[in-house]
Amino acid sequence: MSDLIKVAVDAMGGDYAPQEPVKGAVDAANEKTELFIYLVGQEDKIKKELEKYTYPKERIQVVPASEVIETGEPPVNAIQHKKDSSMVVGLRLVRQGEASAFVSCGSSGAVLVGGQVLVGKTKGVERAPLAPLIPTEHGVSLLIDCGANVDARASHLVQFAKMGSIYMENVMGVKNPKVGIVNIGAEEEKGNALVKETFPLLKECSDINFIGNVEARDIPKGVCDVIVCEAFVGNVILKLYEGVGSTLISKVKSGMMTSLRSKIGALLVKPALKETLKTFDASQYGGAPLLGLKGLVVKSHGNSKAIEIRNAIFQCITFTREDICGKIKEHITT
Amino acid sequence: MSDLIKVAVDAMGGDYAPQEPVKGAVDAANEKTELFIYLVGQEDKIKKELEKYTYPKERIQVVPASEVIETGEPPVNAIQHKKDSSMVVGLRLVRQGEASAFVSCGSSGAVLVGGQVLVGKTKGVERAPLAPLIPTEHGVSLLIDCGANVDARASHLVQFAKMGSIYMENVMGVKNPKVGIVNIGAEEEKGNALVKETFPLLKECSDINFIGNVEARDIPKGVCDVIVCEAFVGNVILKLYEGVGSTLISKVKSGMMTSLRSKIGALLVKPALKETLKTFDASQYGGAPLLGLKGLVVKSHGNSKAIEIRNAIFQCITFTREDICGKIKEHITT
Repeated sequence: MSDLIKVAVDAMGGDYAPQEPVKGAVDAANEKTELFIYLVGQEDKIKKELEKYTYPKERIQVVPASEVIETGEPPVNAIQHKKDSSMVVGLRLVRQGEASAFVSCGSSGAVLVGGQVLVGKTKGVERAPLAPLIPTEHGVSLLIDCGANVDARASHLVQFAKMGSIYMENVMGVKNPKVGIVNIGAEEEKGNALVKETFPLLKECSDINFIGNVEARDIPKGVCDVIVCEAFVGNVILKLYEGVGSTLISKVKSGMMTSLRSKIGALLVKPALKETLKTFDASQYGGAPLLGLKGLVVKSHGNSKAIEIRNAIFQCITFTREDICGKIKEHITT
Repeated sequence: MSDLIKVAVDAMGGDYAPQEPVKGAVDAANEKTELFIYLVGQEDKIKKELEKYTYPKERIQVVPASEVIETGEPPVNAIQHKKDSSMVVGLRLVRQGEASAFVSCGSSGAVLVGGQVLVGKTKGVERAPLAPLIPTEHGVSLLIDCGANVDARASHLVQFAKMGSIYMENVMGVKNPKVGIVNIGAEEEKGNALVKETFPLLKECSDINFIGNVEARDIPKGVCDVIVCEAFVGNVILKLYEGVGSTLISKVKSGMMTSLRSKIGALLVKPALKETLKTFDASQYGGAPLLGLKGLVVKSHGNSKAIEIRNAIFQCITFTREDICGKIKEHITT
């Protein structure tokens, strides 16, 4: 039991709760025998879902929490007042060391606030960034920070670069990950005040592989593994990725419907195209870690299905095994 | 002659100079009899190109300029020292009132610097924004500012909103254009310090149709006509649009090549798809105006062909006829 990796899952968060989080947890536990999962939320609803499946009963435990934090609620208020919500109870399990990680598809704001307030930042970490993986031509890159705290300082961005490098190297297995800072030109002297202040600091870091500026145009090409930016810019990048992608795909679909000839063609290309486009869907990558905390908190997309939740849980195994929290603590102040 | 609209065209700027700028100018002059075009640049090269075409000789005049500003040159330096460059000579024509507009596919930085230094800002305008049209599901939106001056103040953004509204209403014919400010959430209290300061000021403007925050995810859906943002963010949006678009289209293409079945389908959908995707290509829209100057300066994409240059020249006709410079001067300080 002591070698099990314990992950708390928010059974009440997301568009398809509790069905999909429960199914994702069951799938994960069935597949990986080193997992122990706490399913946090309304006991009767979770148990009703669990009845549908065959699963290792000794490795899935329901942890009752009567309240649910809704997506629209003001995050700080929700975390303060809904003390018996699945989110607060789940995050407390991490705080108390009962679980090494917490996975939720619930309100982003509440996950971000709750992670910082209830789990707490690692000593030395100035700000805990939310770092989703985004798809590129060659695989994925880590976009750090997309959190709720905007107007970062240069010292924050330097820490993001270090934390992102540790994550990509140890969780994603990228050797010597390339770190770039988002800028509006490739030249060193370009940028806003924040980027100009951060650039020389990143150049001085001996423990990261800093490659300089990255223009937004080159992000989808996968030119670097860790994309450092302030959270306002990160949010714009993340959401525009999603927006341009979905608009363009709907354009492609409607373009195929304009003539009989193209309609027949559409039937033929559909299966291959669907498979290809799936690799370019940001929601496929099993959730974004909130880094720099005393435990791991993973925010999965609100519309996650069981497979994405399962992937998010799997991410927790590597994260825990590789002791990312310990590695961040060690590197962050040097 | 006095009723002619005089436009100066940089014959030496862009990837396909002088061929495409000259062809674009010839096409424009042939199509619109109210146009008078100054083709600015190396006389022998321009004349050699002009020999290929039939065109109204009384409405196209070559203005000699011996130097060329290259894309990589530091803009301030280039504008200061290459006094006989096509860019400097062309901008001077606007400054002196010889031409009402200048169109260039050359170095963005040099166009931005040159426009402000040589043409000069309209009285009351604090900063001249570069405002490209970007494609959306429903047509186009104006993204203002994508210029080189980052770290804007709230008062700049308010002026951008006003100038953008005047442009969309009078040049693009959008009645009561919807103005949104780029933010990381839909709620009024969200945002970085700049957006929080700007939001209430925009709400107070009685001469614009302010609809509130726009999330990057919704920009491609065309939820507003004028998208207000600081230039760093604007550059990220513009370039990511291009980057995600081109990566996704190459994914679609390679996805269609994965099986014999899909290859046959690809042949059938290709023509329809090509036509559809063209409407989503940011470079198709004939160049971005640099607003708030004493004349019009239009920056066209470096890879513009004759058709885009022609479109940029056409834009100058409406801009001049509708006296956008005068309207901006009138509204900007109120």
